[in-house]
Parts: sequence; C-alpha cells; structure tokens
Amino acid sequence: MTTGQKLEIRRYSGNPLLVPRDVEPSFPDWEVIGVFNAGVAEYQGEIILLLRVAERPRQSEQGSLLVPVLAGEDGGNACPAARAELREIRRIPGRAANGDGGNSAPPAIAVMQLDRNDPALDFRDPRVVRDRSGKTVCLTSISRFHIARSRDGVNFTLDPGPGVWPEGAYESWGIEDPRVTPLDGRYWITYSAVSDKGVAVGMMSTADFAEFRREGVVLAPTNKDVVLFPEKIGGSYYMLHRPVPDGIGRPDIWIARSPDLAHWGDHRLLMGVREGRWDEGRIGAGGPPIKTEAGWLVLYHGADRRDRYCMGAALLDLHRPHEVIARLDEPLLVPEADYETSGFFSGVVFSCGAVVKDGEVIMYYGASDDTMACAVFDLAPLIGRMSRPRP
Amino acid sequence: MTTGQKLEIRRYSGNPLLVPRDVEPSFPDWEVIGVFNAGVAEYQGEIILLLRVAERPRQSEQGSLLVPVLAGEDGGNACPAARAELREIRRIPGRAANGDGGNSAPPAIAVMQLDRNDPALDFRDPRVVRDRSGKTVCLTSISRFHIARSRDGVNFTLDPGPGVWPEGAYESWGIEDPRVTPLDGRYWITYSAVSDKGVAVGMMSTADFAEFRREGVVLAPTNKDVVLFPEKIGGSYYMLHRPVPDGIGRPDIWIARSPDLAHWGDHRLLMGVREGRWDEGRIGAGGPPIKTEAGWLVLYHGADRRDRYCMGAALLDLHRPHEVIARLDEPLLVPEADYETSGFFSGVVFSCGAVVKDGEVIMYYGASDDTMACAVFDLAPLIGRMSRPRP
Repeated sequence: MTTGQKLEIRRYSGNPLLVPRDVEPSFPDWEVIGVFNAGVAEYQGEIILLLRVAERPRQSEQGSLLVPVLAGEDGGNACPAARAELREIRRIPGRAANGDGGNSAPPAIAVMQLDRNDPALDFRDPRVVRDRSGKTVCLTSISRFHIARSRDGVNFTLDPGPGVWPEGAYESWGIEDPRVTPLDGRYWITYSAVSDKGVAVGMMSTADFAEFRREGVVLAPTNKDVVLFPEKIGGSYYMLHRPVPDGIGRPDIWIARSPDLAHWGDHRLLMGVREGRWDEGRIGAGGPPIKTEAGWLVLYHGADRRDRYCMGAALLDLHRPHEVIARLDEPLLVPEADYETSGFFSGVVFSCGAVVKDGEVIMYYGASDDTMACAVFDLAPLIGRMSRPRP
Repeated sequence: MTTGQKLEIRRYSGNPLLVPRDVEPSFPDWEVIGVFNAGVAEYQGEIILLLRVAERPRQSEQGSLLVPVLAGEDGGNACPAARAELREIRRIPGRAANGDGGNSAPPAIAVMQLDRNDPALDFRDPRVVRDRSGKTVCLTSISRFHIARSRDGVNFTLDPGPGVWPEGAYESWGIEDPRVTPLDGRYWITYSAVSDKGVAVGMMSTADFAEFRREGVVLAPTNKDVVLFPEKIGGSYYMLHRPVPDGIGRPDIWIARSPDLAHWGDHRLLMGVREGRWDEGRIGAGGPPIKTEAGWLVLYHGADRRDRYCMGAALLDLHRPHEVIARLDEPLLVPEADYETSGFFSGVVFSCGAVVKDGEVIMYYGASDDTMACAVFDLAPLIGRMSRPRP
C-alpha cells in the first residue's frame, strides 16, 4: 500500500442503482416507496444486495393514512396505540415458501386506517406516526427484504417472488437495514426487528440466499446498526451495536463479544458522538468491518442534530477491536447529489455494506431513504490518513 | 400447600430495619441519604443484605449543589454535561483492599459543584439533575454497596469498612439496586452500573461476601432490574431484564437465556405494563424468581404514571419460564406506612430480594428510596390465587 494517493470518493455515474419503481409491490394496489439500506454479500461470483423494500397501500383518501402491519387473522393489537381502524386483512405473499424457522408467524397483514385529523397524532415525520408525547405509535410503511444480484456490481437484477417478509411478534412493523456477514460457511444477517415492542436486533442466516432461517432476537430494544466482524478474534465473535439509551447516555457505538453468535456479553463503549460536529447526533456502524493490514476499517454513519446523515470512517486494532486506532475528522461522504438531498427522507447517505476489489472499496448506500447508490474509493489513502496516532 | 389461607401481607412491626443514620458516611463531612434496595442472600446461617448506600457531601451553600462522581486524578470528564466546577478530589476509601478485578479503576472521587441558579439545569427531581431537554446530566449522590448481616432476619449488623465502591468507567456515577443469586458455588450480583454512558447492567460475583470480582457489563444501556434464575432450566441460565426502549416500546419485563452467565441472547418480551393500572408506567423484577411447585414466583415492582411504586406478583412456567401462568391483578404491597409514603423519594416500595422460610416469604424492600423494610406473607395463598388459568 502507498499512502501518497489522494483520498477521493467517486459516486457511480449511473446512480441511483435502484429506485422504488424497479421493485414490484407485493399487491397491485400497493406502492413501493423505498428500496434502500441494503446489506451486501459476495456469493457465487455475484454481488448480492439484500435490499430493504418499504411499501404500503396506495393512499386514496386525503384525510386518512393507510398503514400495513403484521397481525393475526383478527387484525388485533398490532398497532395498539394508533387509534386505528382495521380496513382489511391480506395474506402475506408466498408465506408457505418463505423458509419459516418454526416461528408461529402471524398469517396476515392488517391494513389500518388512521385519521390524519386526529389531534392526538403527529404526522409530520414521513416515516412514522407519533403521539403528542413523541412516542411512535406506528410506521407509515412496512419493510421486507428483497434480493438483487449483479455480476459487475452496478447492474442489478431483482429476484422474482415475494422476498423475505417479516414474521412473528418482534417483526410486526417490519424488518429493516440488514447487514450480511459470511462466517463459518453461512451468511449471518443482523437487522432491525421492529414492532410495538420496540426496535430490537434480529438475526437470520442463510447458506444460499434462497432459504432464510430465523435465529431469534439477539439484542433487546432499543438497539440498531449491528454488524458482525467477519472472523473470530482471539477465539470470540465480535459485533458492533448501537444502543439508544434513555435518560442518560447517547446513541454511541458499542462493541460486544460472543462465543457462538447467539449470546452476547462484555459490552463496551467503542466510540461516541462528537459534540458540535457532523456526527454529533447519533452514529452507527455501516457494514461488517473490513480487515486491512492497519486494522479493522469501520465505515459508519453519523447524523447531526438536523438528521443529516453522512458516512465516516474509523480504524480499530486488529487484535483488540475495542481499541480505536483512528477516526476520520471529516465525513467520507456527505449528501450532495440530488438523489441524496431530495427524496422520502432527504439528506441521508446510509451504508449497510461494501465490497473490496483490488484495493478499491465499493460502498453501497441508501440515499434519502428511498434509493440505492454506490461510491468507490481507494483503500490505501484512507488507511494512510487514519494510520496516524489518535489525537 | 393449601389454598384456603387468606393472602395477607404483614409489615414487620420494627420497620424500618435500617435507616441512613445506621450507616457511617465514607467521609466525616459527607452524609448518607439512603440505605435501600438491598440484594438478599443466605450465607453461613445468616441473612445478608447487600445494601445500596447513597451518599454525598453535606451541602453547605444554598445556591449550589455538591455532587460526587468517580474520576481520574484531574477530575476530568466524569460529568461532562453538568457545567460543573471541580471542587475537590478524594481518594476512594480502602480502594486497595477492595478485591479489584483488575480493572483500571479511576483512583478518586471528584466533588463537583453545580450552580442551582443555572437556567440550563433542572433540579426538581431529588435524585438527578436534568438539562432542559430532560436528559440526566448527573445524579445528586453516589451509590455503593454495603453488607449487613442478621441471624434472625430483622436485626442487622453492618460490616466494618468501606463496602463495595463503584469502579471503572461504567460505574462513575455509582452502582445501584443489586440482586444476588447463588449459582454454581458462587453468588452472582447483577446491578445498575451508572455513568454518563448510560444505565448498563453490571455483574460481579463473590464466594464469601468479602472479595468481589467484576464480571463486566452483561447488558448495554438502557437496562435495569436484572435477576437471575437460581438454577439452570433445560441446560440454560435465564435472566429477567427490563430494557427502557426509546421511541417505540415500553418499560416491560423481558427474559433472556445464556450458556455461561456472561453472554445473553434469545430475548423475549415476558410481560408488559398494564394500561390504566397500578403497573402502567414501568415494571421490573424484584429478586431472583422463587421456585414453587406451581411455577417460578416473580415478585416485581410496578410504577404508575405518578411514580408510585408498588410490589406485585406473577407466576412463570417451571420448565418454560418465558410463559406467564398468572399475574396478580392487584398489588401485593402498596406504599402506605409512613416510611413508605414520605422520605427521599416518597411513595416507593421496591424489593430486590426475599427469603423463604417454612412456607413464609420474607420480602425485603427499600422504602421511599431511603430506608430498608421487610414484610412477610404466606406462600400458599399467594400461589393459590395465581394458579387459576390466565384471564
């Protein structure tokens, strides 16, 4: 590696790679509103994006909002605080073929109708409905996963079929923001399992990106942005995670250790938000850490107080991953392109995975919570910049 | 067991058992403001209370508040958001003799002075100082553990010495609300490890209540009220825990599983708060579940929206502890005695442990966040009431 190269991040000229209209909605009268924040894997010579697809019924009446949630046949209790009215029940597409891991999955989707004039509800955030105390009572869409495949890393073909639908009580509001890590012959997917019980961390695994096995809830709410290290270190598995503390503490990145991927302990604060800077509001790991000679490269997102999400970078010690060697002062990628500065939730670049080829990092990312894009940079100058001792 | 007995809870006539003046402060110019929320164990024929002792410098100036935090010699950064002034540094009493588990413990206590007229700070809650956004910037006291011993269960003698002081970065604001569980020849203590990083769950262990070994942070913030089951079930260890979700979800009781006590997974929601009732605000397990023929008895606290804390009871399946067999409608114990309805934080009964003798449960509890009390009830009628099928 040479450190003389300039660090320059190059957006792919064909961005965005995928947009909502590229994905068929689950029902003819639904709309896909986002295809974004994909986990990334290399499998059988292809690059796989495990896309987050957010969809909902097309909205017809101006004074109301239709929101989908998983529910029992009676539609009961999936969205208890929203004072919503059950409009209809739909069967989940392809449920039987979904590689169900033995959970007693609710068999249906309930479409709930909320009154936009309800003075108890707050509809200002396009992503969620809140009550007057700021508590989220439901989401405005439901997210599932869908696979796209590519040989060249930029032209993607979507798999047919319904994709991976949420299932069970911890996923009744959707599954979001997957990260994919190859370990011990399987691919391990950590994701946000969202329900009225909170935002927990779910895990599923697959050997072939066709059958997916649920591995349970690995961290209790509220926690997000879990990435696994792609190999054991000193005999243990490691993850980065991002609790959202209540009352005391900040949304910082923590590290934890496991003997078996299923059970986690030895939690330590790894790195925190930085007051007054681009990552002052919250931070969270992007994809699985990338092994380099200089250390584990962590691409992470940081949001400021206005919810502008940028991507940044940090370097962790190879053998003691709870030690931060260096952290880039400035962001690596800032929302600037039009697909990053306008969209469903504007001003967001949010990566859940990357691929390294010949010293070049292809970082895939969701833009404005509705499309997928990618950007490329050389590894060597980034590592070179971060190999200085920590200030 | 007979179910004909009446369920009646009898407060000990000599309550409170222990009050702040029974405990020597760590320094002559400090005051103990609370001795409460003790973990309970039986050891060598004695009942041991692992007391939470909250103390602070005696307050001299009306316009300011002196608060203690663990810190480095420079007092740096232990209370960063409080805009506090460092007043003095004290050595932790008996640190060398404290059975330090090899952590690089901050060597000192910093006494910080806060300005009560600072318009950015909110001093209304006697327990904490908040900023205007409701974020806690520091506590008003620091808690450590101290041991009291008794042959008869009601007359307690305090151990000499400094007790168990907080140590390390995750305990810089104190250690609180211990629960003690005998397992595999040691006593395992789960507790709130409080610092500016959040309220995490710490674990320590002891074989003799003299030497204590830190076992690390077992759950990330925000989480509290962790109790371990006193034996393995189906080859696994189990705990109850109480995450405090942010944005979505409520402060409900969850259950988790472990192969080794150090690493935890398979998190499931066990039982939730009950809207409009005495346990509508938050709930959390009391002491370690008590094994009965009918199931695991869980004594738990529930608070309403006005922060009145009562004790209640639930029964879990013996072999499948994630199944709630029954839950008492009404509380078991309500703050009614004068030491429960007035004090440092009034209207609180909060148990962290109990002892069962000859079919009688002696439930120890903190009252009004400042004293220790106990109450007695017969196990049979309580179990009888809860053995009905779940409504």
